[in-house]
Amino acid sequence: MSELRRDPIIGRWVIMDTDHPAGPKDFEKEEHLWQGKDCPFCYGNEAMTPPEIEAIRAPGTTANTAGWQVRVVPNKFPALQIEGDINRQGIGIYDMSNGIGAHEVVIETPYHHKDMDELLAPEIENIITIWCRRSMDLIKDKRFRYIMIFKNYGPSAGASLEHPHSQIIALPMVPKNVLEELKGAQRYFEFRERCIFCDILRQENSEKERIILENKYFLVFCPYVSRFPFEVWILPKKHNPYFCHIPKEEVPFLASLLKELLTKFKKLFGKISYNFIIHTSPLDGEEKEGYHWHIEFMPKLTRVAGFEWGTGFYIVSTPPEIAAGYLKNS
Amino acid sequence: MSELRRDPIIGRWVIMDTDHPAGPKDFEKEEHLWQGKDCPFCYGNEAMTPPEIEAIRAPGTTANTAGWQVRVVPNKFPALQIEGDINRQGIGIYDMSNGIGAHEVVIETPYHHKDMDELLAPEIENIITIWCRRSMDLIKDKRFRYIMIFKNYGPSAGASLEHPHSQIIALPMVPKNVLEELKGAQRYFEFRERCIFCDILRQENSEKERIILENKYFLVFCPYVSRFPFEVWILPKKHNPYFCHIPKEEVPFLASLLKELLTKFKKLFGKISYNFIIHTSPLDGEEKEGYHWHIEFMPKLTRVAGFEWGTGFYIVSTPPEIAAGYLKNS
Repeated sequence: MSELRRDPIIGRWVIMDTDHPAGPKDFEKEEHLWQGKDCPFCYGNEAMTPPEIEAIRAPGTTANTAGWQVRVVPNKFPALQIEGDINRQGIGIYDMSNGIGAHEVVIETPYHHKDMDELLAPEIENIITIWCRRSMDLIKDKRFRYIMIFKNYGPSAGASLEHPHSQIIALPMVPKNVLEELKGAQRYFEFRERCIFCDILRQENSEKERIILENKYFLVFCPYVSRFPFEVWILPKKHNPYFCHIPKEEVPFLASLLKELLTKFKKLFGKISYNFIIHTSPLDGEEKEGYHWHIEFMPKLTRVAGFEWGTGFYIVSTPPEIAAGYLKNS
Repeated sequence: MSELRRDPIIGRWVIMDTDHPAGPKDFEKEEHLWQGKDCPFCYGNEAMTPPEIEAIRAPGTTANTAGWQVRVVPNKFPALQIEGDINRQGIGIYDMSNGIGAHEVVIETPYHHKDMDELLAPEIENIITIWCRRSMDLIKDKRFRYIMIFKNYGPSAGASLEHPHSQIIALPMVPKNVLEELKGAQRYFEFRERCIFCDILRQENSEKERIILENKYFLVFCPYVSRFPFEVWILPKKHNPYFCHIPKEEVPFLASLLKELLTKFKKLFGKISYNFIIHTSPLDGEEKEGYHWHIEFMPKLTRVAGFEWGTGFYIVSTPPEIAAGYLKNS
């Protein structure tokens, strides 16, 4: 029989196929056919992007020329525009606002074919540092309420360019899913006077069967209420609501774990599409009790169908205990 | 500049690309390559499915043989099992339950290659009648709290069989997304003493620019806060919380609209994947004020990426006013 599991943060139910769990070979293989020609993110093509906002580059090199390791540029086709004042209004029963925000691209490496797992750990550290710096800079803009950092890798994860990159979006409001998580964590805190994520850490540490990797500062595991097969969370061991307040000494530990995790996925599945999202408390001054930043990593092995869209109820073919086993041993 | 729009029911924001709206030709074309051999849903293969639960068939023909028009069978690989008592329990901070529920398949036609738009309107009426009858029957089971009816058509909508079919799932709890909609509608009702869906009908009728089709009993339009390009809602004009309480005289009007809508989509896009979901108030006896059943139709033209997953904030490349224009004229 299958098993129903309820997420303790926002109350989402999933149906777990514990009877016939799918293994890595049971998923369709997606082909990554990309055209690498004239890539605007490639070394030497700096003039093809809008002028860079920030970069980590060799001393003495100038902006928008070669010599960089990580480069941040505005998205050429931004979902939101940086210029203007926010203008919210009602249209009958509907609400609208003009599309003010920021949409930046972090070009993670000069090399078109160097996936994140192939970078050296210190190169990944640079990317993490840039994510933090851009968040801290963008939140100074009083129009923005939430800074979202995420990576789409591969066509079925929604990436439109192959060259390794991640994205940063600054939004004029805290998005619904983030609000739900914050509220759920706060409700738990009010009830127990403990952070729910710290409790998750404790329970995962004692049950052990969903843990894939860990080091001094981070735990990597398949969550008990995974929405997708082989979903993985990276949770800092020390309570901290804000991603960009990550202590400097933790950054190398996060970088090496990310590399190790992505290497495991490539060993197990080859080149698959994935998304990861940094979940963090908004930096808007309002202290949200009981929230704890983390990364949610979602490999794109299945397609979301009508049932999931209609209900928010996910059907998961690989229970996290089984998925963690595969990943731990790969 | 793009535009932000906020859904008045659950508070979801979307980013609408009003500057460079995508037309039907701007979306990738998906190939539907299916194997039609040995289809368990085909006429004559009745023995390949579990025994039928219900069917509309020619007088004098016996169950599980030829002679049917619409046939309901248990899903051979059900997400939930019909037998057993519900057993909810805590596992530390997590919640779980055994996977009790029902999962049925409605085989919509004996013909493998006859899509819903190619059926005659009275044949679609039979399907609607069966949806209602199965809902009414399943809800008698006191273990079930919600009956969900939906259709996945095409590979990227998550369909695993080509033969036209829809699905019915009975769940032991009201799913999160449904609860949110019910609560949102109720909050609006408490504030205004009016149904929000009735207000949407009024506003769409007066603005007109998002309407695609209508008849005596139904309005078909692209919602102001579409989450997907070319998303369409079918809303009954008379207030009614429960899909399966649909008055008999409305059924032919719904059937002909469904046919017309699907024909328009095929003209505009060819054979594309889609999901549709019947949103209805639960039939569990608790009256939910201000809810109004409807169908949400979502063509699969784009892929949901990291940003959408992380935020619940959708980026939509075709504003509903433009999409409705294409569909109206196709």
